[in-house]
Amino acid sequence: LLLPERRGCYNPDVKVAEIGEFGLIHLLSDMVSRSPLVAGAVREELLVGIGDDATAWQWPAGKQLATVDTMVQDVHFTLDTISWEELGWKALAVSLSDIAAMGGQARYALISLSLPDETEVDDVSRLYQGMLKLAGAFRVALAGGDTCRSPLVTITVSVIGEAGDGHLLLRSGAEPTDLVAVTGYLGSAAAGLAMLQEKLALDVELSGYLKESFRLPCPRLTEGRRLVEFGIKTAIDISDGLIVDLRHIAEMSRVGARIEADRLPIEPRVRDYFGKRALELALTGGEDYELLFTASASRIKGLKQAISIPITVIGEIIPGEAGLVSVINGQGKPLRVTGIGWEHFSR
Amino acid sequence: LLLPERRGCYNPDVKVAEIGEFGLIHLLSDMVSRSPLVAGAVREELLVGIGDDATAWQWPAGKQLATVDTMVQDVHFTLDTISWEELGWKALAVSLSDIAAMGGQARYALISLSLPDETEVDDVSRLYQGMLKLAGAFRVALAGGDTCRSPLVTITVSVIGEAGDGHLLLRSGAEPTDLVAVTGYLGSAAAGLAMLQEKLALDVELSGYLKESFRLPCPRLTEGRRLVEFGIKTAIDISDGLIVDLRHIAEMSRVGARIEADRLPIEPRVRDYFGKRALELALTGGEDYELLFTASASRIKGLKQAISIPITVIGEIIPGEAGLVSVINGQGKPLRVTGIGWEHFSR
Repeated sequence: LLLPERRGCYNPDVKVAEIGEFGLIHLLSDMVSRSPLVAGAVREELLVGIGDDATAWQWPAGKQLATVDTMVQDVHFTLDTISWEELGWKALAVSLSDIAAMGGQARYALISLSLPDETEVDDVSRLYQGMLKLAGAFRVALAGGDTCRSPLVTITVSVIGEAGDGHLLLRSGAEPTDLVAVTGYLGSAAAGLAMLQEKLALDVELSGYLKESFRLPCPRLTEGRRLVEFGIKTAIDISDGLIVDLRHIAEMSRVGARIEADRLPIEPRVRDYFGKRALELALTGGEDYELLFTASASRIKGLKQAISIPITVIGEIIPGEAGLVSVINGQGKPLRVTGIGWEHFSR
Repeated sequence: LLLPERRGCYNPDVKVAEIGEFGLIHLLSDMVSRSPLVAGAVREELLVGIGDDATAWQWPAGKQLATVDTMVQDVHFTLDTISWEELGWKALAVSLSDIAAMGGQARYALISLSLPDETEVDDVSRLYQGMLKLAGAFRVALAGGDTCRSPLVTITVSVIGEAGDGHLLLRSGAEPTDLVAVTGYLGSAAAGLAMLQEKLALDVELSGYLKESFRLPCPRLTEGRRLVEFGIKTAIDISDGLIVDLRHIAEMSRVGARIEADRLPIEPRVRDYFGKRALELALTGGEDYELLFTASASRIKGLKQAISIPITVIGEIIPGEAGLVSVINGQGKPLRVTGIGWEHFSR
């Protein structure tokens, strides 16, 4: 990763594709933190700025959270692999998942919708129906937004949430004695996308499960708050892929991490159908929107008894090179992983 | 304007271009307000939902505001009429202006940036420099965001603000005894765009003024708060054009409005150069981001003495057909206005 040492260090010809999404975020975050006027305002009450799942600040009545995510047609989705209603659900779910990964409660969503002129009104209506279903389930109010014309469907969802007086789940709290754990199953969303793109012929039941995993992710808001209650401090949601997202934790916490491939929770039918490929989907697939977290064995044990979805320990935090994530097999031998997951501008 | 009587009343073939931006907002707002689960959550503390300049809710420590605006390349801007730095300023200004139009103070901004792979890193850096300049001037923190790949540059700025215990400036408070007034000059931004698009050869000073009006709008945050202090209750920012935006006030307040063309504050050099066209620019041009407000003569008189930029009374609120805005000349004769201003999906 090419990190900017200082502002203006780029050759005018360097394109964003060359430094990648994370390089760009680093550059912008650096610019913002060096800006004296803004830094002054920020220091007063900003708790978490650019670089975690959501922004957080201290308000007299408690902690507040805000996050934004954009989905662009033909980049994040294609209209032949998802319906408008599912797209609405998913666009909101992605932002709610960021609030979940901070241990917060989501309250308000603002929707910015860019649409081609020829979009059918009924499709927009269905998009909102999908959003409203998910919003209703978590008591989130669709409270405002913006609509405009664009050649491509683009949906930006901003969510404002709260975390009361509790602590926040950050990316930076992992310690070398922690275990690494996840909620739910890994790789199901990526398997669903593979099925749709490759037109795989699966039985109705598995096909239904995979479509739902890919199109209707469930933001782990309830689980995120449980993590806080059990004293867990470190979490991220799996959007880009297990390895990339664990690397974010490892970088921010200045530690390494080791995953045991055999322990990854892969849905049995996915493992049966996809065979060896299932491991790759689970390691690098992304879009599962499960919570990836680190904590002591005893805290995880307590959490498991209090939560209704599977919690699986998949590895451990280790001292060593910050940000280094390795994967080992059942014999403790390192696995070579091809591709690490999703990053914009540099696929 | 074709307003939906109820959900699902659209023929499947109706396109968003046929109902227009405001028809679409009506439809979505209607869907949201009918959604029982969300409506329950909303009623607790939501003060202003879809349909005003910003969303507002009651928080234990005071009122909070949130707004979002998107700028799409080749729809809202072209890269040959604005520099990257100016684009950053303007994208943030547009959202700050919404907070100003509610009488609030802006606190946090989240930036979602969609960029083509070949975008130069230095250009993105300049975009942020422009944002940081404006953010610094109003002590707004650029606190988070999202970056992704897209064929078109798209910038979505969400701003979270506060309004303490004061009242909010709404679109719905205009009364038949009110006068209509604006801050600053009208039509300068549209004149600037016309100059750039039509490659008009103007002297350096006027050209500089017009470019700045179009590219570097100043959000009237200070003035918005002054309006609140002087007991003014009704305002909107002029983004789409004077007539369209006054119509929003008239519709929401269930009143009519009459503008006197001769009273419009047009910058003298713009009037000299553009002649008769200056009136059209002032009435329908948009993007001035001045505040348009209604209040009694005495409140406006008080405000004028307390504010450093020009405040001009341009007309009055009248009883009669809700949403009807007319323009009269110096002899009291109605003027026919061609075009009303900017609306997405139905130009």
